[in-house]
Amino acid sequence: MIVVLGGGPAGRTAAIRLAQAGKDVTLVEAGGIGGQCLHHGCMVVCALNDVARSIAQARNLYTLGILDQVPSVRFPHMLGEMRGIQEKIRSVLDAETRAAGVEVQYGREGRLEDGNVFIGDDPVEAEAVILATGSRPRIPDIPGTGLLNVYNPHNLSEMDNLPDRLVVIGGGVMAAEFAWIFHQFGCRVDLLCRSGFLKDLDPSLQTIARKEMDGVNIHEGCSISGIHGEKRAESVSTGGSSPAEIPCDAVFIAAGLVPRSGMIRGVKMGRGGEILVDRHMRTSMNGIYACGDVTGSPCLTPVARREGIVAAENILGKETEMDYRAIPRSINLASELAYWEGDEPGGIIFSVPGPAGPGTFWSVPGGNTGLARVAVDPDSRRLDAVYTAGPAAGIIAAYTAFLSRCGVHVDDIDNFLEVHPMSDGVYSLLRYASLRLWNNGV
Amino acid sequence: MIVVLGGGPAGRTAAIRLAQAGKDVTLVEAGGIGGQCLHHGCMVVCALNDVARSIAQARNLYTLGILDQVPSVRFPHMLGEMRGIQEKIRSVLDAETRAAGVEVQYGREGRLEDGNVFIGDDPVEAEAVILATGSRPRIPDIPGTGLLNVYNPHNLSEMDNLPDRLVVIGGGVMAAEFAWIFHQFGCRVDLLCRSGFLKDLDPSLQTIARKEMDGVNIHEGCSISGIHGEKRAESVSTGGSSPAEIPCDAVFIAAGLVPRSGMIRGVKMGRGGEILVDRHMRTSMNGIYACGDVTGSPCLTPVARREGIVAAENILGKETEMDYRAIPRSINLASELAYWEGDEPGGIIFSVPGPAGPGTFWSVPGGNTGLARVAVDPDSRRLDAVYTAGPAAGIIAAYTAFLSRCGVHVDDIDNFLEVHPMSDGVYSLLRYASLRLWNNGV
Repeated sequence: MIVVLGGGPAGRTAAIRLAQAGKDVTLVEAGGIGGQCLHHGCMVVCALNDVARSIAQARNLYTLGILDQVPSVRFPHMLGEMRGIQEKIRSVLDAETRAAGVEVQYGREGRLEDGNVFIGDDPVEAEAVILATGSRPRIPDIPGTGLLNVYNPHNLSEMDNLPDRLVVIGGGVMAAEFAWIFHQFGCRVDLLCRSGFLKDLDPSLQTIARKEMDGVNIHEGCSISGIHGEKRAESVSTGGSSPAEIPCDAVFIAAGLVPRSGMIRGVKMGRGGEILVDRHMRTSMNGIYACGDVTGSPCLTPVARREGIVAAENILGKETEMDYRAIPRSINLASELAYWEGDEPGGIIFSVPGPAGPGTFWSVPGGNTGLARVAVDPDSRRLDAVYTAGPAAGIIAAYTAFLSRCGVHVDDIDNFLEVHPMSDGVYSLLRYASLRLWNNGV
Repeated sequence: MIVVLGGGPAGRTAAIRLAQAGKDVTLVEAGGIGGQCLHHGCMVVCALNDVARSIAQARNLYTLGILDQVPSVRFPHMLGEMRGIQEKIRSVLDAETRAAGVEVQYGREGRLEDGNVFIGDDPVEAEAVILATGSRPRIPDIPGTGLLNVYNPHNLSEMDNLPDRLVVIGGGVMAAEFAWIFHQFGCRVDLLCRSGFLKDLDPSLQTIARKEMDGVNIHEGCSISGIHGEKRAESVSTGGSSPAEIPCDAVFIAAGLVPRSGMIRGVKMGRGGEILVDRHMRTSMNGIYACGDVTGSPCLTPVARREGIVAAENILGKETEMDYRAIPRSINLASELAYWEGDEPGGIIFSVPGPAGPGTFWSVPGGNTGLARVAVDPDSRRLDAVYTAGPAAGIIAAYTAFLSRCGVHVDDIDNFLEVHPMSDGVYSLLRYASLRLWNNGV
């Protein structure tokens, strides 16, 4: 038997792949299958963002005089409806996993002690083990994080009313996404970033992100001293060069994730509690693999899934290495901002605003049709990087990263046939780049 | 000098490609550059559909109890704003075309008489000519089409009020798109199709289209006897097996396009007035090429553009053939419905509902998350066809058609990294298909 600890994207994908290959697989999941991705992360942002975008689009059309009013969200009811849909998806994932032949054990946590696996207190014989226990929100070490109305993605569903004034703590993707959503819902939002706002993002996309965050008060370089109030948070104080006390009706912490490895003992770990693995997803102990957030790799569902596949394939004897090149990433605000970068940057850059098309036609007056920006290597004729913003930027980033990985040359793009209109500036920019670089010289 | 007649997608693209290669090019356009695509077709549907989708999404969220109201369109104002944006795009296209080195002559129609080109009444010396005069709406030969408030895409901007009851004549893509839009705007819509509704569409997508058209009265197999009224249309009568008189406040004709070739004489034409061309876009006369709708090829902007490129390349001495295989096509209703088919159908079919993701999360309760459906050839390991519905189906269709054209094998898809969530069921279905077909046997 193979035991998989954790039913999030990494563990579930690994378990299914192994079961499909005929292996006897037990998946141990203390909570609901689907992991943070379904219950507290990706799908929550998606649900709330879809409503926020609907409001933002209506507001834009109202501002242009085209719609007669702007609807408002009924927040607590929305959370309830969201839970219903999450439950529906959970049951689909459960059925799909079982149908693949995986035995799923709910209700007890799995753990590892010096190479021995336990489900709850029961030891289990296993020919191989996959550790996929995921991550949990990082809660900053400041006073007041335990007050009522201090939320994070794991207890957001307890937020029973939309706050008038919300402080969001964090400067990364999740913080930006939640701050934007709550601002569209009508909250006054202060976003407190320890260093810079989306600091790892390419400047071209960061400019767009800042424009879309218009109306959110972004405080950068903040040292947060504490969250204050008797039972409920009433303010957040910041120190540093410009100390301030920001009043609030609620606090939302989105300050990153930390590996959830407290139940694992015996395999080598890094200083942050992440399980150390090689490119085959092998831990320091023979026959024990790890994949997903618990390994400290980028906390992205597709990476976790892929790592799950790699772990499974290696257990099946098909030597496979994880490839972290050109991983597409995405941020959902008013538009989607997405990008990928190859491991050899430095190509020639081409850049244009996004086209008018589905979802962007009425963004023309505000100059918000997005962006297409690409880096092309003139020697290898390969696409090196894509940065794009628009209604379907993530899909475009994913497909162009795949084209690059498949070795498709930029000059093949002359043979690309689009549908029209299509809110994608990338393919036409590549065609232009190809003409400039190889047909006419630069 | 090379003379290009018509500044729509075909002519403009051809002119730019020739000018970029250093040719002396004159583009003759009697109206506005951008052709029907910008002024009466694609971009009009896009503009109106973006507003209609905004209303439809708000209505769905209102029905779920998540939004507190549903906005209404201010119709005449919307048309005015749309014209402003079209004008902005027109000026961008004009500037882009001139910047490429094309001389653009507005205000006079070009024509061809037995191999001689005229701009207005002035004969012009040309080393080569490209005929790209486009198409115009087909107006059925029935009484009453000249009444006030009988519209088609060319005079829609004269519709000064939203009608309570609208009759749409046509059973194809444009008819479906306009009928859906007007229904979302609150009109009672009767759609009269001479034969079947979207009869050439794959049944899987047709089922979705019919579901999304819920509320539109679709009449199939209609023989329309006439449009009736004194000055304004008040009803439309149908004959055949179940004759009826349908009261209306306006009529919208979207019954297809016919080639616009009245100003062309001397080259061989088909019975519908289309200019006959070979795969090099050569007409029957030496040095005279034609491209776009006037050739009778599928009236699609990307096809017209590509034909323009092919004509230009052949004039430049680079022998190039038009390839009509795997052309992606798209219909915009509540979701986008898109597909392409290779020329060798018959692969193994896989099909799943679309996933919950951006734009579809709140479609889960209604079971409207769309579709992913693919045909895979188990011998060549190539993708043969894609049918998909969802928020970005056109982009997915275009990229998968390109992957297939580039010779990418379905089993390479295991190496695809998505962003998450992503409203695309196709890549994951291909991964599943690949596993089923080659890793485990079917």
